[in-house]
Amino acid sequence: MSNPMPPSDQSLTVDDRRFLDAALRLARRHLGRTGTNPSVATLIVNDGAIVGRGITAPGGRPHAETIALDEAGAAARGATAYVTLEPCAHHGRTPPCAEALVSAGVARVIAAVSDPDDRVAGKGYAILRAAGIEVLADCDPVGARDVLGAYLTRSSKKRAQVTLKLAVSADGMVGRHGAGQVAITGPVARAQSHIMRAEHDAILVGIGTVLEDDPELTCRLEGLEDRSPRRIVLDSHARLPVESRLVATAGRAPVHVATLHPQSERARALVEKGVRIIAGESHDSRIALPELLEDLAAIGVASVLVEGGAEVADAFLREGLADRIALFESNVVVGEGGIAAPFSSGRLPDGFAIRRRAVYGPDRFMLLERQD
Amino acid sequence: MSNPMPPSDQSLTVDDRRFLDAALRLARRHLGRTGTNPSVATLIVNDGAIVGRGITAPGGRPHAETIALDEAGAAARGATAYVTLEPCAHHGRTPPCAEALVSAGVARVIAAVSDPDDRVAGKGYAILRAAGIEVLADCDPVGARDVLGAYLTRSSKKRAQVTLKLAVSADGMVGRHGAGQVAITGPVARAQSHIMRAEHDAILVGIGTVLEDDPELTCRLEGLEDRSPRRIVLDSHARLPVESRLVATAGRAPVHVATLHPQSERARALVEKGVRIIAGESHDSRIALPELLEDLAAIGVASVLVEGGAEVADAFLREGLADRIALFESNVVVGEGGIAAPFSSGRLPDGFAIRRRAVYGPDRFMLLERQD
Repeated sequence: MSNPMPPSDQSLTVDDRRFLDAALRLARRHLGRTGTNPSVATLIVNDGAIVGRGITAPGGRPHAETIALDEAGAAARGATAYVTLEPCAHHGRTPPCAEALVSAGVARVIAAVSDPDDRVAGKGYAILRAAGIEVLADCDPVGARDVLGAYLTRSSKKRAQVTLKLAVSADGMVGRHGAGQVAITGPVARAQSHIMRAEHDAILVGIGTVLEDDPELTCRLEGLEDRSPRRIVLDSHARLPVESRLVATAGRAPVHVATLHPQSERARALVEKGVRIIAGESHDSRIALPELLEDLAAIGVASVLVEGGAEVADAFLREGLADRIALFESNVVVGEGGIAAPFSSGRLPDGFAIRRRAVYGPDRFMLLERQD
Repeated sequence: MSNPMPPSDQSLTVDDRRFLDAALRLARRHLGRTGTNPSVATLIVNDGAIVGRGITAPGGRPHAETIALDEAGAAARGATAYVTLEPCAHHGRTPPCAEALVSAGVARVIAAVSDPDDRVAGKGYAILRAAGIEVLADCDPVGARDVLGAYLTRSSKKRAQVTLKLAVSADGMVGRHGAGQVAITGPVARAQSHIMRAEHDAILVGIGTVLEDDPELTCRLEGLEDRSPRRIVLDSHARLPVESRLVATAGRAPVHVATLHPQSERARALVEKGVRIIAGESHDSRIALPELLEDLAAIGVASVLVEGGAEVADAFLREGLADRIALFESNVVVGEGGIAAPFSSGRLPDGFAIRRRAVYGPDRFMLLERQD
């Protein structure tokens, strides 16, 4: 993974940079598993050796700093703590992480990004500095977005972060009309896209995609079967069939239907089958997307992976609500009856920058991020 | 219902007061049914006649103002709008309610309480005033807490509001050791307590109560069966039996287990049965309550009704986390083997004021609110 933008704080040593990068990689491990708390990592380094490491525990508690400091014990004294997010400053019953770092006697704290939560927002750094700890703040806000983007979007914009996922064929298609799901990419890209599902809080598709493909939208990688996120269907008229695969698997991973008719017969029938209903705000007879993303954030959904169809992807783009684009491109030719992709690597939407590239078997991958 | 505190704004006329009270009563109707949006009511009154009324729709959208203005149509011009909460000021895809009131041409807006959400917080009033509308703000913050307390707590304190429910016998007991559930109150009080369940986002009990009583904790009033809130068990060691009534009914209303061992065998077995796990922060080997209430708010749970046992009620009181107390008192004598109540009407905890009294058949009811 290459980082095209230099860290904003140039007083980092080469070793600082290396440990901070390691912390960011470590944080990725619990992405999608920490509930409404962000997946944060902490490395405690004393005299060049890692003496403590922590990632926010699955479920979201305890926080990374607590775990890392526990492991480090007395070796934390005089050490440097590398944290992916500004340590929290607000008291619950347990002391905030900033105070825990002070008590442990660390000498330096290197943080990738500030916490926009107004109970933290610089107060974490202030606690550390007041105790005489050297603090290098916001050392890699761009790198931090890779693992904290969802949390940062939810905290600062009060809405869920949106990643559009698109698999495009050599002839610029995303599928074929009436053919159900068409295999565009190979097994490696497919595995990567299932990992991406596990890292998100929710997958979202339009009702058109459901009626056409009857997808299951679960994470079907060995060992990750229990990490399927919620499935959300944009479904103004509550047309999701009760006999669809989504409904059949509602016991394994929650299914939400966002609809303009939450009290309808159809909606009630879905509720009977264990589907949950989200009441949408209406705009031009469609579900207003900003309001939906706000309501999702309010129930703890910080990241949404939009998997189809082309029209839904286009709606998020037009509204300026697509934060990232995960673009898979293959050499497969769909040919006649193909459904045109809204964009491709040769025709990228405006306002996005390439953050990462990868090759997955015969396929190419590109992660784009909106510049704002 | 009597309101012991006078409205803070004395420029309300008798009619203003009457319509604002009516709006507050109307808002109560959708309590517990509007997801993460608060149940707000709006009355549009022109020349002494109600020309439009709205309550936040079940599911949370559309908002009350939109519905009331739609009903009022042209009659909103020059009218007074009575709103239980400051109209929202933030744009999604649809215009904020403050702008909708401006466009409709209302002349006056009477609001019970300000919205602490930092996207509103006075900005709603500012939009109205800038358009020349007369605004009487914060006319009944105490009355508004009856219906908006959960929302206000969640917005301003970032945690769920806590109401302790207690039924106390004539001899100051809440039950009898080893006797399962003991009927302390009669059918009217019981019905009222089930309505209270329907109005909350969640019911919380300790694992001791579950092991002793095996309660179902659903709303079992005719017509309200589908309004059972989530059930939450404080269960450090994940001891909730898979054969309990709670687990058996997990398909009808969600069951959450807050535990310090979210990755344990027991927790996994519960997940298999459809129970959801909340990872607790540990404090003295117990689940830290402030952190739990913060995590609940983050998944959209704004109000928690604590139903037992005495030890759990006591823990919330000691931590200063009990916002309200719903106290039922009966003439039943429990006698030998009784479990002493942590308090009663003759021995109230410090810092609470009586907000409401009622008589339910042979039983007495009292709603207390913490003064802070």
